[in-house]
Amino acid sequence: MKLYEKVALVLRDNIESGLFVVGDKLPSIRQLVAEHKVSISTVQQAYHQLEIESLIEARPKSGYFVCYQRSASVLPATSRPAQRPIEVSQWQQVLEVLLSKEGVDTIQLQHAMPNMTESTLKPLLKKMSDLMRHQVALSLPYGDIKGALVLREQIAQLATNSGCVLHPDDLVITSGCQEGLSVCLRAVTNPGDIIAVESPSFYGSMQAIQAANLKAIEIPTNAETGLSLAALELALEQWPIKAILVTPTCNNPMGYCMPEADKKRLYQLAQSYDICIIEDDIYGDISYQLPRPKTIKSFDEDGRVLLCSSFSKTVAPGIRVGWIAPGRYRDKVTHVKYVSSSMCPTLPQLAIADFIHSGRYNKHTRRVRLLYKQGRDHLIQCIKKYFPQDTRISFPQGGYILWVELNKHYDVVKLAAQCKQGEVSIAPGTLFSATGKYRNCMRLNFSEQTEVERERGIRHLAHYIKKQSIVEGHH
Amino acid sequence: MKLYEKVALVLRDNIESGLFVVGDKLPSIRQLVAEHKVSISTVQQAYHQLEIESLIEARPKSGYFVCYQRSASVLPATSRPAQRPIEVSQWQQVLEVLLSKEGVDTIQLQHAMPNMTESTLKPLLKKMSDLMRHQVALSLPYGDIKGALVLREQIAQLATNSGCVLHPDDLVITSGCQEGLSVCLRAVTNPGDIIAVESPSFYGSMQAIQAANLKAIEIPTNAETGLSLAALELALEQWPIKAILVTPTCNNPMGYCMPEADKKRLYQLAQSYDICIIEDDIYGDISYQLPRPKTIKSFDEDGRVLLCSSFSKTVAPGIRVGWIAPGRYRDKVTHVKYVSSSMCPTLPQLAIADFIHSGRYNKHTRRVRLLYKQGRDHLIQCIKKYFPQDTRISFPQGGYILWVELNKHYDVVKLAAQCKQGEVSIAPGTLFSATGKYRNCMRLNFSEQTEVERERGIRHLAHYIKKQSIVEGHH
Repeated sequence: MKLYEKVALVLRDNIESGLFVVGDKLPSIRQLVAEHKVSISTVQQAYHQLEIESLIEARPKSGYFVCYQRSASVLPATSRPAQRPIEVSQWQQVLEVLLSKEGVDTIQLQHAMPNMTESTLKPLLKKMSDLMRHQVALSLPYGDIKGALVLREQIAQLATNSGCVLHPDDLVITSGCQEGLSVCLRAVTNPGDIIAVESPSFYGSMQAIQAANLKAIEIPTNAETGLSLAALELALEQWPIKAILVTPTCNNPMGYCMPEADKKRLYQLAQSYDICIIEDDIYGDISYQLPRPKTIKSFDEDGRVLLCSSFSKTVAPGIRVGWIAPGRYRDKVTHVKYVSSSMCPTLPQLAIADFIHSGRYNKHTRRVRLLYKQGRDHLIQCIKKYFPQDTRISFPQGGYILWVELNKHYDVVKLAAQCKQGEVSIAPGTLFSATGKYRNCMRLNFSEQTEVERERGIRHLAHYIKKQSIVEGHH
Repeated sequence: MKLYEKVALVLRDNIESGLFVVGDKLPSIRQLVAEHKVSISTVQQAYHQLEIESLIEARPKSGYFVCYQRSASVLPATSRPAQRPIEVSQWQQVLEVLLSKEGVDTIQLQHAMPNMTESTLKPLLKKMSDLMRHQVALSLPYGDIKGALVLREQIAQLATNSGCVLHPDDLVITSGCQEGLSVCLRAVTNPGDIIAVESPSFYGSMQAIQAANLKAIEIPTNAETGLSLAALELALEQWPIKAILVTPTCNNPMGYCMPEADKKRLYQLAQSYDICIIEDDIYGDISYQLPRPKTIKSFDEDGRVLLCSSFSKTVAPGIRVGWIAPGRYRDKVTHVKYVSSSMCPTLPQLAIADFIHSGRYNKHTRRVRLLYKQGRDHLIQCIKKYFPQDTRISFPQGGYILWVELNKHYDVVKLAAQCKQGEVSIAPGTLFSATGKYRNCMRLNFSEQTEVERERGIRHLAHYIKKQSIVEGHH
């Protein structure tokens, strides 16, 4: 860690722990120079870093001020799913969401679709267009079964940001993260095996569990720290769990980042029960924190972590470029990937490799990370303004989705159906449970809309919620 | 059927049955007009059709002559695989083939890669490039989970050529045919189920059987008519077979087309044992016969046939656009496809839709079909010239691969390894068996090479074969 990063770390801790609150003036540069025994430029760099992270702002001739607001809303309570292996249902509902066509006027809060209008994405589009014009012949033959080497090299380099040391040979390119998760599940399990998952949990991975003839055991999950390790350990003692499937960094749908110590502890648990971890890191690179949080994979000593990611959430889902770092399951994963869809198209891989290599991927994620953080704060503000008082809201540390828990009398499935005819689309919480729990919850995104649209969408939602409370006689 | 098609059919039958042989003069136009009671232009059209099919040629001022040569070589004998369900092995060998990097000088007879240098492919490349330039934004978001509607419409239309009546809603777009086959297998089976396959059989589908925890029962297969229905019926009586997976049209690796009556009978067998058929039609559109042979799907009354195809063999594999017509398994197939890799990229689908809609797909397949037929005749000629006298060769009716059976003392796995260091690459027969049978066989392609290269490749192979016969003391 560089000197300025150390100084920034101390300041960040002080802000995030609430020692300095929004609007507070921070120590002067001179004070910090004396306190930390570093140069003026080191302190300036530290402050600059915190500015990038939107934690502080410089006011001309006045100094630096905190602009970071801790969540003042109540977080959803730790979930209490049934503690036994169950078959995943809910496919019909997932399908409805997948097939839903939104009107041009619909405010889309439903899909986890990234912002794809920023100018920082343009170099990628240009590269794709150039490749298609000048190297179109590359789009015709079969490519490398493990994916284009130049891309695997870039991904290996990128992974150092999350504390991973990977060799290009340790990577297998997939058609998005969905294929990665499906392939990993099938590579490490046999039909009938039990998989431990967070609850709530991404519906795509749960449907993959179902399709692979596996059972899920939903583990209680805290809205701030993720999977309850105590509950997991209990489940591990009680059931022959084969693998743990988690999204510990910028979780979908909650947005939390599991603390580093917990990630390490989770890895040690997997070691002591000799099972593997499938780690979904698809939102990891758009954590609001810089440097980005470490992956569980970064603690992996014996290859038992299969890390899955893709550029679908950080860049664009239509690119369909994902990857697996399969650890000691490399051969099996290569087999299942080949069987799954043979090789992936070459040109998108080359375009992404160039996007990373030129530094533009980092530039793009830096840009959208700020936007998303602002989006989060704005969405939370809107929800607090319009939704019932007893609403609970998760407080994402990255990505662009959050979890809303209404009081238990509300029926969000009904709400979603009512909204569908209208102006706003949402993802009901039942999608994120194996058995249709979380009927009073919803996942909302804050990536694409303008602030005006977002507020309008939330107002519409609030309107339907109010109608429901009047009809049903609760509030 | 139009009048001229009826006349052409009679003539074609006479040629293919050997009533007229190569070099024979055909009846004059006047004779046929009298015989069939049709107009001069109808007969002219019929002859034109047969010219397109390369069965006959017009010699100025002399009339029409047969230029079609029946296979004068001995076909491989009907295969005799073990008649019991077995686990598929051979993955390591398949992987070697997939990972093999050929030198620039290597004559590639190994992969089933289409000819991608014909000018008839250019409009597709131009369209892809144009789309990427003018509608690049379409490459960013998630697309339709079942695939782009415009493409499904075009495929439905195309399927009428093989006797199928399909609605766009009856189609699911996949990432190539490999994903299609994998998805179908997983949609219609449970782990442990038994699947009947041709023997020899495409290694990709056999590895998919293995990865889905299924067992294969290899059915004896005739080099001219395909799967032995008698043997299949015996197996159906004896074993609880769940599905039949076949490539009945332009088979990989043999090239035969199962006769229409046999296809119908196969369907009826599936009906009476109430099981389903997964039909791989990936080479169907480049059958040498026009109109192209009907699919088994065309006889499907109750939705038990899942038809899989793609544009990988007819256009280019790198495009990664395939499709499934899943019949009554539509919902399950949609689920497994979503889980497998979510949706497919949009732009390649739009480009292919345009390629079909503009008539250029038909133009391209007409063009390459002729090339491939010439390639087949040339390759067979080369093999007969250089290989041992007792070599047997299949006689493809479409596509660009054929099957060579050396006498049983030869070891083609060794041969392939020797060739690898050298000038030519081949696919050893063991890849096409669940258990490593066909060690004296190989699959060769005749798509890409010039005639000079092809002859040189076969000469090299013959050299190694001769070396082996000297070392091993057989001939």
